[in-house]
Amino acid sequence: MILVSDNLQGTRPPTRALLERGDAGPVRELVRRMVLQGARMIDVNPGPLRRDAARRMTSLVEAVRSVTDLPLLVDSADPAVMEAGLVACGRAAILNGFSPEPRKIERLLPLAVRYGADAVGYLVDGRGLPPPSAEERLGIAVELLAAAEQAGLPRERLIVDPFLAPLIWEDGQRRNAEALEVIRRLPEVLGFSVRTVVGFSNLTSGSPAPRETRRRAEAAFLPMLAAAGLHMVMLDVFNVEAVRTARACQALLSPRVFAWESL
Amino acid sequence: MILVSDNLQGTRPPTRALLERGDAGPVRELVRRMVLQGARMIDVNPGPLRRDAARRMTSLVEAVRSVTDLPLLVDSADPAVMEAGLVACGRAAILNGFSPEPRKIERLLPLAVRYGADAVGYLVDGRGLPPPSAEERLGIAVELLAAAEQAGLPRERLIVDPFLAPLIWEDGQRRNAEALEVIRRLPEVLGFSVRTVVGFSNLTSGSPAPRETRRRAEAAFLPMLAAAGLHMVMLDVFNVEAVRTARACQALLSPRVFAWESL
Repeated sequence: MILVSDNLQGTRPPTRALLERGDAGPVRELVRRMVLQGARMIDVNPGPLRRDAARRMTSLVEAVRSVTDLPLLVDSADPAVMEAGLVACGRAAILNGFSPEPRKIERLLPLAVRYGADAVGYLVDGRGLPPPSAEERLGIAVELLAAAEQAGLPRERLIVDPFLAPLIWEDGQRRNAEALEVIRRLPEVLGFSVRTVVGFSNLTSGSPAPRETRRRAEAAFLPMLAAAGLHMVMLDVFNVEAVRTARACQALLSPRVFAWESL
Repeated sequence: MILVSDNLQGTRPPTRALLERGDAGPVRELVRRMVLQGARMIDVNPGPLRRDAARRMTSLVEAVRSVTDLPLLVDSADPAVMEAGLVACGRAAILNGFSPEPRKIERLLPLAVRYGADAVGYLVDGRGLPPPSAEERLGIAVELLAAAEQAGLPRERLIVDPFLAPLIWEDGQRRNAEALEVIRRLPEVLGFSVRTVVGFSNLTSGSPAPRETRRRAEAAFLPMLAAAGLHMVMLDVFNVEAVRTARACQALLSPRVFAWESL
């Protein structure tokens, strides 16, 4: 499992210092700490931008790129902002992301093709909502792959996000148990070893449960995702318990001998 | 996942007090604590007994039965001791266990039929050794089922133990990653929703690793087993971290709504 940091968000102080005052120092410092913490990919999410949106995305990506060559997930729903991000990112760019909504297929997906980026496809329906059953999710994956190939994206560039539900949803844990099944079955359903990613922080987001309960849910669910074959996990890389659990999973699922001694 | 206590072993002081001096008090007290800790089945393993073996198994099972009605796994490789245990156990007895070794098929398996017990079958080869590949293990499961049905054991009474390897084995983590696959595929391969059990304490047995490393390996592997569909986990019920992890897994995999709040 590759650790993808979700720490670079427009609503947080380091990113705001750059977006609002042009001060890149705090973002650079944060990115350095993220990499030391184990991030191997970084989601760059400026959040909703009012004016000069494309230029601001550019400066954010440039600040990250000045520190690291790691693959970056350019995270925006606005095609102009996405394009600016992909251009600034250069190589190792990942569009995050598209869905079966017609305007996403028409306006976002072609950008991944144009800039040679990978693309994350969300298993949500045409209105952007997660469907209730595993079968429907797998059906949407088939649609996403067809749309990607029709747009000219090589299938190896597709990454599928099956969508983790917050556990505060009434049927959150049922949906997430089904997400495990979706992750396991996707390679067979799509006919190749498609990569998968989930937004792990979503699991406990909005939860009024005490920190210990949330950590316990995370510690139990992350190994289930790993064993299901999850390829990338997007999370708070300063959540040391989750990072430690992810490492333990890697060691236990590694084909190397005695790998668990690296726990 | 049903918690099966492996705490009642002939080598430990409470059990020895009974087997050597006929004092049932410590066993009764231990069983009461095991049940409070969450045990829902109990493995009764007197260990190797020299003289009066059958009578000693009888007194051990009777001591446990005087405290609880929980299902008991009667754990012995000696047919006479096994028979004494099953008779003393009465209802809710589980023979633990048999393997494809001819003398186990011939002398142990018929006891489960005669006394209406469930029977644990080990996925080991004809010499009692775990085979190297998942495919071979699944092949052995097919053999075990055929032997059980030929002996007259209803298939629903079979419980399969895919065998967890100690992580100190050179290829321990590879074997255990394959055990996950075996657990997942068994219902399809055998054609019914067969129950499975593993000896979880085996994972870290003999390991020179510090306690924290062993606990981390357990915390990462138990959810993988749960998500693979493991039905029963045999473990030290006083390993509070493992019991807590097992509970978290149950909550996350429960079809009930808001079950995770019981974490």
